[in-house]
Amino acid sequence: MMNQIPYIQRPSLVYTPGQGDPNVTRLSDWITEWDGAERFHAALIGAPLSKSSISFSGAHMHPTVFRQLFSAFTTYNFEDDVDLLPLRVRDLGDIVMHTTDIPQCHHHIEQAFDEVARRLPTVVPCLIGGDHSITFPALTGLQRVRGERIGLIQFDAHLDVRDTASGGRSNGTPVRSLMETGVLRGEDVVTIGLRSFANSKQYRTYAEQQGVTLYTAKQVRERGMQTILGEAIARLKMNVDVVYATFDIDVLDQSDVPGVPAIGPGGLSPLDLFYCAEVLGAWDRVIAMDMVCVDPNRDTRDRTTRISMHVLLYFLTGLAKRLKLTAGHA
Amino acid sequence: MMNQIPYIQRPSLVYTPGQGDPNVTRLSDWITEWDGAERFHAALIGAPLSKSSISFSGAHMHPTVFRQLFSAFTTYNFEDDVDLLPLRVRDLGDIVMHTTDIPQCHHHIEQAFDEVARRLPTVVPCLIGGDHSITFPALTGLQRVRGERIGLIQFDAHLDVRDTASGGRSNGTPVRSLMETGVLRGEDVVTIGLRSFANSKQYRTYAEQQGVTLYTAKQVRERGMQTILGEAIARLKMNVDVVYATFDIDVLDQSDVPGVPAIGPGGLSPLDLFYCAEVLGAWDRVIAMDMVCVDPNRDTRDRTTRISMHVLLYFLTGLAKRLKLTAGHA
Amino acid sequence: MMNQIPYIQRPSLVYTPGQGDPNVTRLSDWITEWDGAERFHAALIGAPLSKSSISFSGAHMHPTVFRQLFSAFTTYNFEDDVDLLPLRVRDLGDIVMHTTDIPQCHHHIEQAFDEVARRLPTVVPCLIGGDHSITFPALTGLQRVRGERIGLIQFDAHLDVRDTASGGRSNGTPVRSLMETGVLRGEDVVTIGLRSFANSKQYRTYAEQQGVTLYTAKQVRERGMQTILGEAIARLKMNVDVVYATFDIDVLDQSDVPGVPAIGPGGLSPLDLFYCAEVLGAWDRVIAMDMVCVDPNRDTRDRTTRISMHVLLYFLTGLAKRLKLTAGHA
Amino acid sequence: MMNQIPYIQRPSLVYTPGQGDPNVTRLSDWITEWDGAERFHAALIGAPLSKSSISFSGAHMHPTVFRQLFSAFTTYNFEDDVDLLPLRVRDLGDIVMHTTDIPQCHHHIEQAFDEVARRLPTVVPCLIGGDHSITFPALTGLQRVRGERIGLIQFDAHLDVRDTASGGRSNGTPVRSLMETGVLRGEDVVTIGLRSFANSKQYRTYAEQQGVTLYTAKQVRERGMQTILGEAIARLKMNVDVVYATFDIDVLDQSDVPGVPAIGPGGLSPLDLFYCAEVLGAWDRVIAMDMVCVDPNRDTRDRTTRISMHVLLYFLTGLAKRLKLTAGHA
Amino acid sequence: MMNQIPYIQRPSLVYTPGQGDPNVTRLSDWITEWDGAERFHAALIGAPLSKSSISFSGAHMHPTVFRQLFSAFTTYNFEDDVDLLPLRVRDLGDIVMHTTDIPQCHHHIEQAFDEVARRLPTVVPCLIGGDHSITFPALTGLQRVRGERIGLIQFDAHLDVRDTASGGRSNGTPVRSLMETGVLRGEDVVTIGLRSFANSKQYRTYAEQQGVTLYTAKQVRERGMQTILGEAIARLKMNVDVVYATFDIDVLDQSDVPGVPAIGPGGLSPLDLFYCAEVLGAWDRVIAMDMVCVDPNRDTRDRTTRISMHVLLYFLTGLAKRLKLTAGHA
Amino acid sequence: MMNQIPYIQRPSLVYTPGQGDPNVTRLSDWITEWDGAERFHAALIGAPLSKSSISFSGAHMHPTVFRQLFSAFTTYNFEDDVDLLPLRVRDLGDIVMHTTDIPQCHHHIEQAFDEVARRLPTVVPCLIGGDHSITFPALTGLQRVRGERIGLIQFDAHLDVRDTASGGRSNGTPVRSLMETGVLRGEDVVTIGLRSFANSKQYRTYAEQQGVTLYTAKQVRERGMQTILGEAIARLKMNVDVVYATFDIDVLDQSDVPGVPAIGPGGLSPLDLFYCAEVLGAWDRVIAMDMVCVDPNRDTRDRTTRISMHVLLYFLTGLAKRLKLTAGHA
Repeated sequence: MMNQIPYIQRPSLVYTPGQGDPNVTRLSDWITEWDGAERFHAALIGAPLSKSSISFSGAHMHPTVFRQLFSAFTTYNFEDDVDLLPLRVRDLGDIVMHTTDIPQCHHHIEQAFDEVARRLPTVVPCLIGGDHSITFPALTGLQRVRGERIGLIQFDAHLDVRDTASGGRSNGTPVRSLMETGVLRGEDVVTIGLRSFANSKQYRTYAEQQGVTLYTAKQVRERGMQTILGEAIARLKMNVDVVYATFDIDVLDQSDVPGVPAIGPGGLSPLDLFYCAEVLGAWDRVIAMDMVCVDPNRDTRDRTTRISMHVLLYFLTGLAKRLKLTAGHA
Repeated sequence: MMNQIPYIQRPSLVYTPGQGDPNVTRLSDWITEWDGAERFHAALIGAPLSKSSISFSGAHMHPTVFRQLFSAFTTYNFEDDVDLLPLRVRDLGDIVMHTTDIPQCHHHIEQAFDEVARRLPTVVPCLIGGDHSITFPALTGLQRVRGERIGLIQFDAHLDVRDTASGGRSNGTPVRSLMETGVLRGEDVVTIGLRSFANSKQYRTYAEQQGVTLYTAKQVRERGMQTILGEAIARLKMNVDVVYATFDIDVLDQSDVPGVPAIGPGGLSPLDLFYCAEVLGAWDRVIAMDMVCVDPNRDTRDRTTRISMHVLLYFLTGLAKRLKLTAGHA
Repeated sequence: MMNQIPYIQRPSLVYTPGQGDPNVTRLSDWITEWDGAERFHAALIGAPLSKSSISFSGAHMHPTVFRQLFSAFTTYNFEDDVDLLPLRVRDLGDIVMHTTDIPQCHHHIEQAFDEVARRLPTVVPCLIGGDHSITFPALTGLQRVRGERIGLIQFDAHLDVRDTASGGRSNGTPVRSLMETGVLRGEDVVTIGLRSFANSKQYRTYAEQQGVTLYTAKQVRERGMQTILGEAIARLKMNVDVVYATFDIDVLDQSDVPGVPAIGPGGLSPLDLFYCAEVLGAWDRVIAMDMVCVDPNRDTRDRTTRISMHVLLYFLTGLAKRLKLTAGHA
Repeated sequence: MMNQIPYIQRPSLVYTPGQGDPNVTRLSDWITEWDGAERFHAALIGAPLSKSSISFSGAHMHPTVFRQLFSAFTTYNFEDDVDLLPLRVRDLGDIVMHTTDIPQCHHHIEQAFDEVARRLPTVVPCLIGGDHSITFPALTGLQRVRGERIGLIQFDAHLDVRDTASGGRSNGTPVRSLMETGVLRGEDVVTIGLRSFANSKQYRTYAEQQGVTLYTAKQVRERGMQTILGEAIARLKMNVDVVYATFDIDVLDQSDVPGVPAIGPGGLSPLDLFYCAEVLGAWDRVIAMDMVCVDPNRDTRDRTTRISMHVLLYFLTGLAKRLKLTAGHA
Repeated sequence: MMNQIPYIQRPSLVYTPGQGDPNVTRLSDWITEWDGAERFHAALIGAPLSKSSISFSGAHMHPTVFRQLFSAFTTYNFEDDVDLLPLRVRDLGDIVMHTTDIPQCHHHIEQAFDEVARRLPTVVPCLIGGDHSITFPALTGLQRVRGERIGLIQFDAHLDVRDTASGGRSNGTPVRSLMETGVLRGEDVVTIGLRSFANSKQYRTYAEQQGVTLYTAKQVRERGMQTILGEAIARLKMNVDVVYATFDIDVLDQSDVPGVPAIGPGGLSPLDLFYCAEVLGAWDRVIAMDMVCVDPNRDTRDRTTRISMHVLLYFLTGLAKRLKLTAGHA
Repeated sequence: MMNQIPYIQRPSLVYTPGQGDPNVTRLSDWITEWDGAERFHAALIGAPLSKSSISFSGAHMHPTVFRQLFSAFTTYNFEDDVDLLPLRVRDLGDIVMHTTDIPQCHHHIEQAFDEVARRLPTVVPCLIGGDHSITFPALTGLQRVRGERIGLIQFDAHLDVRDTASGGRSNGTPVRSLMETGVLRGEDVVTIGLRSFANSKQYRTYAEQQGVTLYTAKQVRERGMQTILGEAIARLKMNVDVVYATFDIDVLDQSDVPGVPAIGPGGLSPLDLFYCAEVLGAWDRVIAMDMVCVDPNRDTRDRTTRISMHVLLYFLTGLAKRLKLTAGHA
């Protein structure tokens, strides 16, 4: 029935629409599978890969749990009085993964993003990880097709610039891989939310030598996210044509996100992240985003996926504003 | 032994008093069963009903878990240097519920509040839910006896104005039911703590058409709870004779209340709620309060009930101040 | 192989060093057993005792879980750009405990601290509890050897001045025991973080009569930790020669520390505690510290031990600054 | 698309077929939605009702969790060398439930079974509860259409003959309700698996007076299930035209079924139940079956639903044998 | 109100009788507090002590959880058609424990059993542990008053003959302590259920040298519990006047008892233990029993306490038979 | 210090010996690291690999949890009166794994077994998995060095003969891989414990065509493990020189092993497996064994690892008997 994008298969479980209170639009009534023909604004794509993670991770479950929560939330942003309903979001399904060949998995991601960029050039892909290794192939596939100078804004407790010599392209390496392969330049990367006792001095030195702009979680608390994000955007605006936003959910404090592999204290607050997601969704240079390292296996009551869901919803609120699709409150 | 109020039965488990350190007064030494004769200030009443909940809920366990925690806290408000001991609080027990007839359960609540209002007119009833459907019959019973114009101050992530046509009087409907039956007017309702992606635009429109005053959690964060509560009280003071306060504990952030059915990020903080409880306890127009939607079945270490307990204790601190029963620190 | 301090035995599980990414120094690569000869700056000592706790506690597990987390964190304080590597920290092991003789356990702690103070006078002992009863014998042993006037700065939701008549020297009594035995004076004690409904008025009166300086968690929120800690230090500076810092982790809010016996809302934030730990580590009068009442048995994902670990790491950051051992970022 | 039976709606989540190893047929590849036209042998029908339960129950979740496990099991009965593939089983969906009107829910079940019996007279309905209250309306609807004398074989730790006067038609009352309304006669009921300290003498006396045949779990252990089931079938064969089998999963031992509301020791073993399910599936007088009181909310790793799934699969193995649809092993 | 036995205090939570279905007698309707005057047959006494345990244990919670389950079971033994109602069982409460003085706790147990033996000579005390250290003082107090030659039948995975030199009178030492202090002779002890890899050869040698009769769990499986118990009773009958039965619940397999400190595979089945409890309850030489080492803190759904509860109920069934108090089924 | 075997590194956590009761030998006192020189009988080798698992697995944690339990069990087999102490067992550590290159991980296992077979030809390696994919490289490395005709006895709920075309060498493929690469012949494989609804008919047909001998769990229950194992040994004795035993712990029933990825009812009992382990340990043709698919991440109280530990201990009991190293009970 569906005209699938290569390397992507339909989600394994699909909602039956039209159940529940007719006065309420749930996400499950709104985000549907793509019929292969209709035009739309944003695409959900799952990347159920966690075998590339250094520490044990069940992040491959995240796309499925993410979809299961579609019935728990509505389309209505009460704070901004924006109903997301006019924004057309389609679920393309999950990128096909190989059981034992991890480089093959990354190749599929790269190809899938190549295909999406080629076939759906006006659509904003939203990648539901998976661990952080997926950002490298996704951004690589995207950049190859678009050819523009691309910047990266990364929300992360960790630098993710590990040496690939020892363990290959794991979730500790995407930023280094992107720079080493020339997909982007260090000066076009901004990382926000770095934490103490979760990184090494050697890797900080490396990142700074590459020109990466770094902000710690403490700086965010002291100077305010509005200021930090403003600086980050100003920095990126100087050089890049387009921007990819990557949200590693472990940037948040362990009291908020029990379901990430590397939990720790001293992290950012979800409200900071929601704010950034909305601003970035509204910024017309942002062409794609991902959310990674949510591990439903260690979560409690899907709290962490509820937060990644809100990151998406605030990003889509911004996108709706960008596209002038906000239906005002009569 | 006990002279019970009709429709209310004794709690199933009762504390044996007088155990523990004699230098410490625990709640279990202070809140005792009513003997049917003595005069007192505030009444605890359990409403162990959760079958009226739209989403699966164990909120009927809350009154029992609430009482079990009586030995975990003391009567002494250290911050304000107020010992609650002079305030006389009695536990009337639990409203009798029917196994399979939910409207009958609501009728019992209404009758119990009718009886309490009639027999104990000076007592402030504190209703320990149960899900939010209990507010409608409780307030109805109360208002019928008192006959005054009554206002409602509601702390809630949700509007609770669902249409009763499809699912009957569930926990999504109390505010609408109160307005539709004429127990109170929309203009006498203030709701604080509403959240995005947890309500629908249609119901917001309905509530606003009824004249309900709405504040989002974001507004509370931006303008401060002191300001918002001040406005709410000013609004209610204009028209109403007396006020009923309802605390739906799901108004709080999911990092604070794992034990509510509809958890989500972006909620209020417990400190906001404790502040409001104390201010409302001290306000002489407040004649009753309830705390609803705590689900001990999904809680961890009774954290959510510990918070509802503190809502009560700060409310009673306010009441002690109202009644000039605060014993100063020598 | 090891030249052990009397009353202390080697940890039961020891890390095999030198595994993992060579560009990252983990705590397990840095904190090693003492060889009995080399000079070092700070000593970790475990006190696996929880049978002295009034409420059920698995705090005796904390030293073991604490060490297991050595591989989860690095030595690099990103925020301050301080690598702790030059600071020499050694793990002396755990104080030997008796199965059924609790006073004997306390005696061992006292003797162990006597020995450490005698043999390693320039080393700062960091005691990993155990419940709060351990502070009394540790500080007693220390003070006996040093003979100086010693002050106590206590972070705690509770006063810990219970009468020892009924239950002996439990985790509710250390501050009273220290004052009653003359190890220190009430006027040399500052307690920060006290909470409502967790103490009794009688004990507050007792503490104030002894001259103890008290700050509630609410005061910290209203006036800021920087101000409160400044006052506390000023107060102690007036009279005492040296200072012992005790961190009862239950001073933090229940949303941050699921793994303490007496959880509750309204507590301090971990960031407050990290700040204090760093300031106190840097203050040259601070000669020892302990961290108590972490119960790994009731924790989730070792969140609470991760916080006690950060309290230590920020304290050691301060100590590195005190000793001018901070290696700047090139 | 679907031609739905009245009172039944499509399942909320539907599997996407054809993913996975082509050499393995999973249940999710085999049990599909009915297209409203094709002929088939057995129907799955969910009854997501647990508000009628005396003790707190999440049994309404069972149909959904049951379907989610379709991908965890294959169609191949290795022990008997029977592949279930030739047997056509269709999922009709879930009976529609009302939020607050429990008698209405029971009415829907009765009507749904009336419709199924009328429209699909050769199909064997397999009802996925829900709590045990659903057996009364299901069997009532069925019997009304068929008009035959119907027997009941019940696997249960409890008699389920409670008086409906106090609590209405709860999960403690189905057998009594069926006898009192004349749907079946006490002498046509056999109950197997009754346990000590889980029933009252008064109700046993009542059941025996009605002519119900009773077997305790202890009798099963002492005499063997083959003997007991043989007697039960012989007893039923004497009088009844057709038989309804009801499996209350709480008949099993608590070590096997953590996910039932009323767990206890001394129960039957799953192997006993699988044996009975296969024998009854193969018996041509058995026209329907149900599985009740599985509470996924309190289960661990869906162990209890895995057992109810096997009860169904062994029942269907029997049915395949009855219909000569067993494909032998070449 | 109550005329308490010295060293025993009332339970902290007491059931309110007379709620629920009038056709069902629950344990909470039957086991009540003693009024200090009426005659009765068996006494429940809680010993909330677990600090004497070698491995971490929450067995002190067992008496409270035990009582909370009184509402989950009925008085009717369906298998034997015996209603326990005519047997008068009274709850004397819990033995008072000291917070930090474990030998004092043991002294209280000894004194309490001395008092009970003196004041209530015809009553059979049933001691609800607590860890296994309680058997030594209980049996000592009992024997001192009665003066008879007493035998011990012990169900246990472990020998419990550890040397008291190192760790004092812990839960590993009761049998050795009883022999060393001359309360009983090794030849009057039978231990059933010993397991591999859970004991040492040295202690086996010691026990055999003392004349203790030993049976492994494997022997029970191979020869049948009926045979083993028959031999044990025959052995004891030869020499002793009276018998004390101690049930260490860790004798059962880990699949049945998640809530004991020392879980392991290869254990006895609950049915074996229920059988023994009933036989011993019916034997007129058995004058007391205890159940130890149930740790509700590590249990799931109180499964382990449900089993200890059934041990008591089968023991009381035996006692009812001994006393000819079985009310037959009309 | 250690003279390590190539491809194997020391365990990350090592026990400090000599703590605890001197009358008890714990496994942690007995199984020590190899010094590279001394002669010994059996080697423990960890294979912390689970990324090759089809379903999500934390089996890589098993070696570490396995070692942590060394302090929970003693060396004394009480049932057989065999103390394992004279048997010399050494822990060689864990095979080095690559983060993202799974074929490389398998290569390391193969090389490690090649090295062990070459350097320690008289030692019996005991491989602690890891998922079932490790059996293929381990047995391959072993056979290459030894050159003998090798048989495989497999305890497993699954055939493990999946086609490697689609997913590579996963945990579903080891038996097929061994046959396809000619390491062993199908007629030299016996699989015991196969379950219904956990395999496909196609793969059964394939296995039977290869000559594999198959026994279901049901056959074991009906005919007894002694008979089945006797037949298996007789079958293998006919043709093979030596035998490799592989224990997939998921062959056991889900009530016994919560911590395996593919749980299900109808499995073997641990006692069956312990019996087989002891018989095979005593059989002089058995040259190696492994235990796979234990997932500590989903276990409760390490119950499943406690069972794999007992499989090893019974295997070593057999080996001690084979080597006449059983120290009799004096």
